[in-house]
Amino acid sequence: MAEDKPLVGVIMGSTSDWDTMSHAHEMLERFQVPHECRVVSAHRTPDLMREYATTAEERGLEVIIAGAGGAAHLPGMVAAQTLVPVLGVPVKSRALQGIDSLLSIVQMPGGVPTATFAIGDSGAKNAALFAVAQLATTREPLRRALAEFRAAQADKVKNETLS
Amino acid sequence: MAEDKPLVGVIMGSTSDWDTMSHAHEMLERFQVPHECRVVSAHRTPDLMREYATTAEERGLEVIIAGAGGAAHLPGMVAAQTLVPVLGVPVKSRALQGIDSLLSIVQMPGGVPTATFAIGDSGAKNAALFAVAQLATTREPLRRALAEFRAAQADKVKNETLS
Amino acid sequence: MAEDKPLVGVIMGSTSDWDTMSHAHEMLERFQVPHECRVVSAHRTPDLMREYATTAEERGLEVIIAGAGGAAHLPGMVAAQTLVPVLGVPVKSRALQGIDSLLSIVQMPGGVPTATFAIGDSGAKNAALFAVAQLATTREPLRRALAEFRAAQADKVKNETLS
Amino acid sequence: MAEDKPLVGVIMGSTSDWDTMSHAHEMLERFQVPHECRVVSAHRTPDLMREYATTAEERGLEVIIAGAGGAAHLPGMVAAQTLVPVLGVPVKSRALQGIDSLLSIVQMPGGVPTATFAIGDSGAKNAALFAVAQLATTREPLRRALAEFRAAQADKVKNETLS
Amino acid sequence: MAEDKPLVGVIMGSTSDWDTMSHAHEMLERFQVPHECRVVSAHRTPDLMREYATTAEERGLEVIIAGAGGAAHLPGMVAAQTLVPVLGVPVKSRALQGIDSLLSIVQMPGGVPTATFAIGDSGAKNAALFAVAQLATTREPLRRALAEFRAAQADKVKNETLS
Amino acid sequence: MAEDKPLVGVIMGSTSDWDTMSHAHEMLERFQVPHECRVVSAHRTPDLMREYATTAEERGLEVIIAGAGGAAHLPGMVAAQTLVPVLGVPVKSRALQGIDSLLSIVQMPGGVPTATFAIGDSGAKNAALFAVAQLATTREPLRRALAEFRAAQADKVKNETLS
Amino acid sequence: MAEDKPLVGVIMGSTSDWDTMSHAHEMLERFQVPHECRVVSAHRTPDLMREYATTAEERGLEVIIAGAGGAAHLPGMVAAQTLVPVLGVPVKSRALQGIDSLLSIVQMPGGVPTATFAIGDSGAKNAALFAVAQLATTREPLRRALAEFRAAQADKVKNETLS
Amino acid sequence: MAEDKPLVGVIMGSTSDWDTMSHAHEMLERFQVPHECRVVSAHRTPDLMREYATTAEERGLEVIIAGAGGAAHLPGMVAAQTLVPVLGVPVKSRALQGIDSLLSIVQMPGGVPTATFAIGDSGAKNAALFAVAQLATTREPLRRALAEFRAAQADKVKNETLS
Repeated sequence: MAEDKPLVGVIMGSTSDWDTMSHAHEMLERFQVPHECRVVSAHRTPDLMREYATTAEERGLEVIIAGAGGAAHLPGMVAAQTLVPVLGVPVKSRALQGIDSLLSIVQMPGGVPTATFAIGDSGAKNAALFAVAQLATTREPLRRALAEFRAAQADKVKNETLS
Repeated sequence: MAEDKPLVGVIMGSTSDWDTMSHAHEMLERFQVPHECRVVSAHRTPDLMREYATTAEERGLEVIIAGAGGAAHLPGMVAAQTLVPVLGVPVKSRALQGIDSLLSIVQMPGGVPTATFAIGDSGAKNAALFAVAQLATTREPLRRALAEFRAAQADKVKNETLS
Repeated sequence: MAEDKPLVGVIMGSTSDWDTMSHAHEMLERFQVPHECRVVSAHRTPDLMREYATTAEERGLEVIIAGAGGAAHLPGMVAAQTLVPVLGVPVKSRALQGIDSLLSIVQMPGGVPTATFAIGDSGAKNAALFAVAQLATTREPLRRALAEFRAAQADKVKNETLS
Repeated sequence: MAEDKPLVGVIMGSTSDWDTMSHAHEMLERFQVPHECRVVSAHRTPDLMREYATTAEERGLEVIIAGAGGAAHLPGMVAAQTLVPVLGVPVKSRALQGIDSLLSIVQMPGGVPTATFAIGDSGAKNAALFAVAQLATTREPLRRALAEFRAAQADKVKNETLS
Repeated sequence: MAEDKPLVGVIMGSTSDWDTMSHAHEMLERFQVPHECRVVSAHRTPDLMREYATTAEERGLEVIIAGAGGAAHLPGMVAAQTLVPVLGVPVKSRALQGIDSLLSIVQMPGGVPTATFAIGDSGAKNAALFAVAQLATTREPLRRALAEFRAAQADKVKNETLS
Repeated sequence: MAEDKPLVGVIMGSTSDWDTMSHAHEMLERFQVPHECRVVSAHRTPDLMREYATTAEERGLEVIIAGAGGAAHLPGMVAAQTLVPVLGVPVKSRALQGIDSLLSIVQMPGGVPTATFAIGDSGAKNAALFAVAQLATTREPLRRALAEFRAAQADKVKNETLS
Repeated sequence: MAEDKPLVGVIMGSTSDWDTMSHAHEMLERFQVPHECRVVSAHRTPDLMREYATTAEERGLEVIIAGAGGAAHLPGMVAAQTLVPVLGVPVKSRALQGIDSLLSIVQMPGGVPTATFAIGDSGAKNAALFAVAQLATTREPLRRALAEFRAAQADKVKNETLS
Repeated sequence: MAEDKPLVGVIMGSTSDWDTMSHAHEMLERFQVPHECRVVSAHRTPDLMREYATTAEERGLEVIIAGAGGAAHLPGMVAAQTLVPVLGVPVKSRALQGIDSLLSIVQMPGGVPTATFAIGDSGAKNAALFAVAQLATTREPLRRALAEFRAAQADKVKNETLS
């Protein structure tokens, strides 16, 4: 892609979420989508979060992927402070396996949407793929790359053997 | 909006989902986003679903909102057959209140993403708002309308009184 | 009580939470604790919430009771922006009966605490009683009133008959 | 059994499901039921799945055992595209232990049935035993083998000692 | 169908389950499958259950559909005492909405299978459809009737309108 | 105790339950209560279970402790076939951690009671202690031993130190 | 029965539990078991609860049935203060349908047992039946009455018709 | 702090809870808040618990932090016997991961409040931070220390890097 400035912001509430969120980063790398990765905590750094959210649009971000665990407020609170679409990734939590993270992100009241993905690595990977699909709507090369990714993925399944 | 052809497809597994999904329709009406509403069942009409999904892109759809309840397969199966971003709305189910619908939609394995929203009316409303935000990325009037919606929503809260 | 300025702030995410939160209000009335009741939405009015939280201490609030439902972010986000103790009340939600509200409030990561109470009316009532107990630590008349409340409550049980 | 062509198709969404689904395979081996094992992904290879389902009957399959995890759509979507009875096995998922897989498979809306078995190894084993019982209805030797299996199983329990 | 003796036994733990299980009865009627409906309680009439299960095969039953709620032991205990395939229908329970019924039926340990369907009416309907599909394997007219049912069902969806 | 014949029967569905149920055995040993331990499977040996249950009273058993996991039918089915009080112990299951075992045992419909204890080791230990308390009603030495056990248990807590 | 003093104590945390607990009372009436019914709250009247528990044995109680809802502490706390066997009945709670009541009662740590029954009316009825079975161990007429109850219950099932 | 006598009592039901509750101890140490740590079991030492609760106020305690797992009765029962505010920490349980502990603590009926925090280490840490905030209301140095803690916590996030 010819663009240099980040189009996607990948943020997470804590460095411990990086194990999960790095799957989003890797997928965006694979599609060569310019992006940035940052720790932004809703609870420990509400001002940083506010600044991140309110400047996202002017900085050129077209999608924000936010991962958080437990009482996960980051995706919803970022969504509340920007018009940029926010994709939420529930990080698996220690006691409740991420069902708390999932409900805290997905059960948003009407008025401020957060698109939610699966708990853990699959969710991070899929949020990135969704971001790619969104960007691809107006970027034909990205659309082709996505179509190739899907085709390769299907071929891989067809060639798998069980032993 | 100057466009006439549907940009958003709102589909659902059964007419009984319309009570929920009509909230997506109304929100899209409010923003004057051209859209269509259809019953497409993953289980009862797999061929219709396949046709809907595989022709969505060429028909000009930029977002698909799919609502379903119980073992809700519609959003994920449509997403598997198109590159158009799919937003899933878990419809409240009779026995399990929609927790089955939610998990059936959100817990997609890595590779094919479905963006998931809250169970029920709020989810339908928010899926539509998310679709608007997505479309607004490249449509400035829509972006302004969304900003106004948010501002009006905030004003409404500020003027509320408790009695 | 001789004090006039509100000592307790009762806030909630929506007017629809008032059915629940009015139980906190009534209990504070009963103990004649000066308090205020407001709608402050984390998602629809993040700026108002921020202002409320950051000025709470200087306005003399010693406790904040925050009620919210679904992906309930209000208690945690207020707690993130003030040192005033925050008591969270999970409001019963339509689809999931408040288990989403509960987990969204109670499962806070280490660093920013929110004291959580039961889902619904009992939680609102108990949050108010807890606020009274907190204030009573340094206000002897309030401590006596609380002791009397407890004694009366016990007497009521002892005089109950089953038919 | 004199028959050579597969009577049972064992399919699964991913090679990672083989650890679980091999228990179905082993049980079918034990009863010498001709069968085939394949990876067929609902999400990554919807066309392959469709072909598999729509040709199952003409290829002589009398039962299909389908295992999948998370938002498990394979059993239900195969069932939607064939009249051959489909047995679904919920594979244990990483975050939610398979409760998502179970609900995604069992909570099918009225009209298209999927017979569901326990999460994990026991479910795979039992799906195979159920397939045997189904085939045994019209194959006396298989019925006898099943009766012997049950008797041996009971004897084993009766001879177990605790230490 | 030319056969007169019941091919399918529909049993349930209590008359209060009839509201649910009558959906199985109606579906079998629709396909003119000879069947019988009885109350047989695992807990209150264990001897009756034993007799029912152990004589099922010789009486010509080819499928048993068993519905029960709460700690639902009927399907599993019947399955333990016959080789006839048993289909279990979890009846919605008062307190826990049938999640207890579902787990009590589906989580069978390896060795004795019970095919499980959705909680409530859909489950009863689908168990009957599954029974029809099983019987249809060796009864061509039934297979055709099932194919027609599916086609009619698909047509109905295609003709539905939203208003 | 002067009695020789078993007063308590400890049964379980599988040898794999012995890890849990041995805690009941050890507690009964501690109180020198004559008892027996056996594997009796509801699903694999329904006839053995029936014989065990129907002869329990004449063999002198005054309490039966039954442990089982998953779709745990043993306690309820034994209770259905004897008047001897049955204590059920939910064994922790692999996928669902024993919540399936718990609900399968405790949610008995009205008419046939099963007393249920905690999931796993604590439940097995407590079922034995409950059996002791039941027997102690008419055996004074056992009552004294139980009182001493409780006192020793309290002393142990009082002498514990944290480091 | 010749005895006059209560043998069974039926207690509950609140008059609102009487709707549920009256089913225990009625069942004890049916068997003419002398018993008493009282409101005793763990949280509102801890001293009354302590007195009730510590004097139960000397007052001749041989079983205590305790019903409570939500964070249900009554059964466990009474059990902690007496050697008399305690049967716990989880009362259905408003938000969480009694799953909170159930877990609060059944998940007792090792050392102090509470026998737990189903949530709601069935649990209350079954706790009474269990109490009868316990008392019947040393009271032959009660044992015969219980056997008759079971036989009548079975006959009722056998004569039920479906329409 | 100039005060020597404990202001905060940290209690727990068992030494096995110390792994969790030591996080509360460490946080109180960090703020140099005088406190004590004790094992007090609701079930094994109800008299000790009663004495602890009823003398807490006269001994100068201003907050009690109580941790317990499973059917966790300690926080609620202490709260029932003192006017000192009680903070409950649900300790992660073996089978159900602490969801039982959480519900047993948080779902208190109206009249006796217990402030609840997250399951496990985060909850223990946050309960201590909440206690500090409560004490800080009337202790300016503590308020400053808390403000510094928050600032340092925010700085730490801002300086974190992902690799």
